[in-house]
Amino acid sequence: MVEAEGHLIDSQLMNAMFDTVVRHGAAFDVLEFRIGRTNDEPSFVSLRVTAKAPAALTEVLEELVSLGCRVARSEDAHLVAADRDGCAPEDFYSTTNHRTFVQIGGAWVGVHQQRMDAAIVVHDGSAACRKLRDLRAGDAVVCGVHGVKIVPEFQERDRHGFAFMTTEISSERRVEVGVGRIAAMMRAARQAGERIAFVAGPVVVHTGGGSYFRDLIRAGYVNLLLAGNALAVHDAEQALYGTSLGVDMETGRAIEGGHRHHMRAINAICRAGGLRAAVDQGVLKSGVMYECVRRGVDFVLAGSIRDDGPLPETVMDLVEAQDRYAAALQDVSLVLVLSTMLHGIGVGNMLPAWVRLVCVDINPAVVTKLADRGSSQTMGIVTDVGLFLRQLAGALA
Amino acid sequence: MVEAEGHLIDSQLMNAMFDTVVRHGAAFDVLEFRIGRTNDEPSFVSLRVTAKAPAALTEVLEELVSLGCRVARSEDAHLVAADRDGCAPEDFYSTTNHRTFVQIGGAWVGVHQQRMDAAIVVHDGSAACRKLRDLRAGDAVVCGVHGVKIVPEFQERDRHGFAFMTTEISSERRVEVGVGRIAAMMRAARQAGERIAFVAGPVVVHTGGGSYFRDLIRAGYVNLLLAGNALAVHDAEQALYGTSLGVDMETGRAIEGGHRHHMRAINAICRAGGLRAAVDQGVLKSGVMYECVRRGVDFVLAGSIRDDGPLPETVMDLVEAQDRYAAALQDVSLVLVLSTMLHGIGVGNMLPAWVRLVCVDINPAVVTKLADRGSSQTMGIVTDVGLFLRQLAGALA
Amino acid sequence: MVEAEGHLIDSQLMNAMFDTVVRHGAAFDVLEFRIGRTNDEPSFVSLRVTAKAPAALTEVLEELVSLGCRVARSEDAHLVAADRDGCAPEDFYSTTNHRTFVQIGGAWVGVHQQRMDAAIVVHDGSAACRKLRDLRAGDAVVCGVHGVKIVPEFQERDRHGFAFMTTEISSERRVEVGVGRIAAMMRAARQAGERIAFVAGPVVVHTGGGSYFRDLIRAGYVNLLLAGNALAVHDAEQALYGTSLGVDMETGRAIEGGHRHHMRAINAICRAGGLRAAVDQGVLKSGVMYECVRRGVDFVLAGSIRDDGPLPETVMDLVEAQDRYAAALQDVSLVLVLSTMLHGIGVGNMLPAWVRLVCVDINPAVVTKLADRGSSQTMGIVTDVGLFLRQLAGALA
Amino acid sequence: MVEAEGHLIDSQLMNAMFDTVVRHGAAFDVLEFRIGRTNDEPSFVSLRVTAKAPAALTEVLEELVSLGCRVARSEDAHLVAADRDGCAPEDFYSTTNHRTFVQIGGAWVGVHQQRMDAAIVVHDGSAACRKLRDLRAGDAVVCGVHGVKIVPEFQERDRHGFAFMTTEISSERRVEVGVGRIAAMMRAARQAGERIAFVAGPVVVHTGGGSYFRDLIRAGYVNLLLAGNALAVHDAEQALYGTSLGVDMETGRAIEGGHRHHMRAINAICRAGGLRAAVDQGVLKSGVMYECVRRGVDFVLAGSIRDDGPLPETVMDLVEAQDRYAAALQDVSLVLVLSTMLHGIGVGNMLPAWVRLVCVDINPAVVTKLADRGSSQTMGIVTDVGLFLRQLAGALA
Repeated sequence: MVEAEGHLIDSQLMNAMFDTVVRHGAAFDVLEFRIGRTNDEPSFVSLRVTAKAPAALTEVLEELVSLGCRVARSEDAHLVAADRDGCAPEDFYSTTNHRTFVQIGGAWVGVHQQRMDAAIVVHDGSAACRKLRDLRAGDAVVCGVHGVKIVPEFQERDRHGFAFMTTEISSERRVEVGVGRIAAMMRAARQAGERIAFVAGPVVVHTGGGSYFRDLIRAGYVNLLLAGNALAVHDAEQALYGTSLGVDMETGRAIEGGHRHHMRAINAICRAGGLRAAVDQGVLKSGVMYECVRRGVDFVLAGSIRDDGPLPETVMDLVEAQDRYAAALQDVSLVLVLSTMLHGIGVGNMLPAWVRLVCVDINPAVVTKLADRGSSQTMGIVTDVGLFLRQLAGALA
Repeated sequence: MVEAEGHLIDSQLMNAMFDTVVRHGAAFDVLEFRIGRTNDEPSFVSLRVTAKAPAALTEVLEELVSLGCRVARSEDAHLVAADRDGCAPEDFYSTTNHRTFVQIGGAWVGVHQQRMDAAIVVHDGSAACRKLRDLRAGDAVVCGVHGVKIVPEFQERDRHGFAFMTTEISSERRVEVGVGRIAAMMRAARQAGERIAFVAGPVVVHTGGGSYFRDLIRAGYVNLLLAGNALAVHDAEQALYGTSLGVDMETGRAIEGGHRHHMRAINAICRAGGLRAAVDQGVLKSGVMYECVRRGVDFVLAGSIRDDGPLPETVMDLVEAQDRYAAALQDVSLVLVLSTMLHGIGVGNMLPAWVRLVCVDINPAVVTKLADRGSSQTMGIVTDVGLFLRQLAGALA
Repeated sequence: MVEAEGHLIDSQLMNAMFDTVVRHGAAFDVLEFRIGRTNDEPSFVSLRVTAKAPAALTEVLEELVSLGCRVARSEDAHLVAADRDGCAPEDFYSTTNHRTFVQIGGAWVGVHQQRMDAAIVVHDGSAACRKLRDLRAGDAVVCGVHGVKIVPEFQERDRHGFAFMTTEISSERRVEVGVGRIAAMMRAARQAGERIAFVAGPVVVHTGGGSYFRDLIRAGYVNLLLAGNALAVHDAEQALYGTSLGVDMETGRAIEGGHRHHMRAINAICRAGGLRAAVDQGVLKSGVMYECVRRGVDFVLAGSIRDDGPLPETVMDLVEAQDRYAAALQDVSLVLVLSTMLHGIGVGNMLPAWVRLVCVDINPAVVTKLADRGSSQTMGIVTDVGLFLRQLAGALA
Repeated sequence: MVEAEGHLIDSQLMNAMFDTVVRHGAAFDVLEFRIGRTNDEPSFVSLRVTAKAPAALTEVLEELVSLGCRVARSEDAHLVAADRDGCAPEDFYSTTNHRTFVQIGGAWVGVHQQRMDAAIVVHDGSAACRKLRDLRAGDAVVCGVHGVKIVPEFQERDRHGFAFMTTEISSERRVEVGVGRIAAMMRAARQAGERIAFVAGPVVVHTGGGSYFRDLIRAGYVNLLLAGNALAVHDAEQALYGTSLGVDMETGRAIEGGHRHHMRAINAICRAGGLRAAVDQGVLKSGVMYECVRRGVDFVLAGSIRDDGPLPETVMDLVEAQDRYAAALQDVSLVLVLSTMLHGIGVGNMLPAWVRLVCVDINPAVVTKLADRGSSQTMGIVTDVGLFLRQLAGALA
């Protein structure tokens, strides 16, 4: 028997629950249902779920809990000690990105450092998400689904102006509307002292968005920049040679052997000892990274298999890079992902569902993939990122 | 034996010639080659082509002529009388969109109404392109490749600022550079009294480009609008209800049953007796079509199988629609195709290669397809058409 | 006060209703709600909806009715005589593609020829959809929302194997699973004597799908082919010259002047007097159209602005083409749309929601657009259409 | 004064040279030109290039050399000792992926370990590419363009059946033709004892290509697998649970909480101590990685910022991962990149131009980007990778 309470219909949870049960060849019986009579009232449902085999029932229950149901029988979360470093007991509870509570000593306790794809470790009556690789032998790991409940973000209509997303992601939308809402959110976040993170790919530079991005940094709208080696390299290339991957940014002309500029920019930054040193020595005098260094904006550059160089600041140990990304994101309230599926997915995996995420890309498939995080706190915009940044900088000027 | 003269290397004609010969399993022998010693001098080549069979030789010669070679032996074009209406003799010469000359009575005569995929009819010592369906029994049709030569547009670097296109079509480009060049071309064209045509899909309205397009019309930059029924319907829907396909243009919110606005807009225009009548009666008070009617901008709306309505002005007889499109394009010097593959291909088929064509679409595959017309007078831009129009209207304000 | 009954939660109708009310700034009060206790039982809801202004209330009611609600007060549909040919009274009820009933003389009467974007005309106690352009002065047209109810298709899980679509449309799916289900549906349809229609674009030929499509025709799986001029032209070009748009189908090599084959194929068919005549005269000896002619498969080719030729069978009067498409689709139970957004949207507009529609395209945006018809009877597959047809023909062999 | 010899017209080098000169505002004068009179004869050109400033001349010369010209004056390559570890002298010669020679002691010496974006280090009369980060203080680095010449791969028509690529990359192509050619190349490579590498993304598993990929491994067509963590994780998930990212591979149904399978698969492999250990212990009994382990196929998994886990075999230190990729690719003659832009670009950067590269992706933009390496040894195919692998395995069975 499972129960759920909340905006079950608005948030389509009821539908998902029924669907889940039927998909597994299981059956349900609605024991009780109280509907919210108005937009503000929550609904409540109590279901009896039956399946042919215990294993199937377990699967169904796991899915229902991940949707926001809880097993009706009140019981503490089941804890099992990890038997070795770096992995969990076999039936560990694998987290979602939604706000989660575990029952310990009869009381519901909120889980810290919420993120998806983690285990929950209980220590001294407090619970926290822990990546599998960070588990140590002896850690008390929550197993099974008893004593676990999650509270999915309810899409309160228009609270954050995210209703834009209720329509499907498409290139056939008026981007100006989305820009206006994002600008309003950014202004409100800055006023409230909240932190805004940007996750940016090199296309930001190729499409001429660099100068508008610099305006946003100067105006204090960028508290954190998460990117890869390529963004910094292309940015440095433009600062040093006026080109990006060999295309002249002012005339749009390709330069046949333009890759040489690319490699020379890397060499110049490496000779200086890194981006910060290059700014200090006057080698790097403009660009996105220059502004970050001069304004003290926190940045983390994560390495990848395709990197040239890399620049000294690029973190090539990906375990460290993931940890530094995650640490930097700790208290962020709004994240904009600009034209980078790789880093965008990486960041999405680290964020709790209640952090707002805006994804901008010219490829609808990328936006769909990034925006598909089981949360209403996501806005996807299919557009040219260079022109998007120009509009955004203009709206915030 | 074939000959060619011109910027053979710059325009990659030499390469294409050699390629053509080898692809057919034929062989070539360079009899003479004089290279242009500087950027301004033309080159000249004379080739002997041999093939195993006469049919293969004919195929090779046809391709070489379409590239810009001429058969060396001086001979008049071979004329055959069409034996029935609506079709050509079997070996008719099928035109390209490049400037073409036929030899008549020993003299090279320019072909009028140049367009691709047509036959050439000679009458009274003058030659003109004629669509197959417009041929009449008895017309003297050019057959074979003797006495035919074409002069491909040579891409004089930067004359029209089209060098932008020498790089591959990609969404990773700075659109502002392209916008600046197009604005310059439009200003120059208006100043020179040349006509500018726009070919526009309904996405122009969905993406919020409508109001910027109206600015261009008001400023006199639109001499001709070629579109389909859908553009006019979505434009009328926005004018009458503020929505486009049921999405509120100011808030971006979808309206569940929003299709009703769509149908009511059609009904309202039909009740008025058409777009012009709706403007006259004060039913239609704003929008792209309103501006066209008020400013006397020529427009042709071509029907399609997916049309709702259609509006009274929409030409549902496609033979008539093609003829009206072609007639309206007769003296145009610059064409912008905005987010419509269907009408863009239709227009591309009608234009000689020397009319400049700018294609804007958010889907790179569409831009590649539209821009692939064997001419250097084409510029492709992969971007959001709503933001593009905003930039363009701003640049021209 | 509105009521609805059915699988309100499974089909997400409840959610859509609440959403609709709130979006319009109106308010709702649930008067009664009875939940289906198991998967098979329907649910029932009764809502009181209040809005600030009568106009807003009308908008909300119209949307709720289009979702499947009915106004609780029992009342006959309101009929208004059309005041002129070709258009409807201003507040005409605009149809959806869902099964619709109107109350006439106190009884609910099913609407014939269900299609979207039409008016409903009542005559002699019977009701039918009528396109606006087909309305005649004096026709009794249903206006407003009283006495109208629609019954949306309920997605009975897996009845048609369409659960595949419950996941988002993506290129990252195993196509073989979809092919297997479609093959099973086609076999079942043929066995049941139902008609299967194909809507096909020229990409079917370019991608080498032609020979597999012919296998399907020969095996009796194609009862109707709806296409444009281009499919038939490319098919004829391949039959006559072995190329498609100048690309050799066996070697994949492009032929520089390959457009000539294209125009010669058109000329050859025109000289014969059309496709049927070309088959009869032995001019056309293979290909998709050849098989259709020989097997007596019904086909309609609709013209478009981009057509070359056209072939004699192509219907260039689009009003006639739409009427012939619609007539041919009258008793079809399964439609496959292969790589043609234009004709696919046209056909989608004509079909009632309960006709199953399968859309196959390599561009996810096209599949999303075609599959978005407010019906669960739609399956979208993102894949290469040539390989898809090969798999399908293999699965049905 | 620069000279070049080779198939200058066929390979479009002449055009690129002229273009380069003019683009930089420089001028050229053709001193001598001897055209190859037949397909087999090389051409020779000698140009005098003049520019307004010495810096501009240097830029032009650098580009011309990267195209295949050499400075006419015979002179040894200019060597400068690196002044510190990890970076090059400022005017170092940055390599292309084409076969390169440097003049040492008056003789042209071939450069070893050819790759792009490297410096050339001369030691004991022999020359080799060295990544900037691998340079050590004191290394003799080639600087400037004197004494350097490259020999671009000439596209001998059809030698490798790569003519397929002379047509633009498009989804409107017959994939079967490409599959046939690739199968023939793979057979020939295996027969010749050459090594074939696959670079594969997780989409191979999602699209059902896994079982066909296993067939290729079993048949001995895969000598090296380069991938990321995700391929191995999804493969293990399918082997252990029959799902891939929570989608049932046999029925195509999504499983709501399917991410749990994903995390459990990771946990299971980690508990076993890695992929090899999991195979040895009987935990992993099927799949791509299982086959690789059982058949002794070399594999390298490179980490990324978006990785879950990672699996023990995944190399999270990207400097090490790049070095291991590059080492494994040392003697490979054919590389197939399947649905992974990230690893595909990484691998492309490491390969000399004469290694054949086949790129398969459903997104044309990805294929264009991967195939754009300035070499004729590249074939791009836009198709569904699952069906592609099915065809390929069938063609090789």
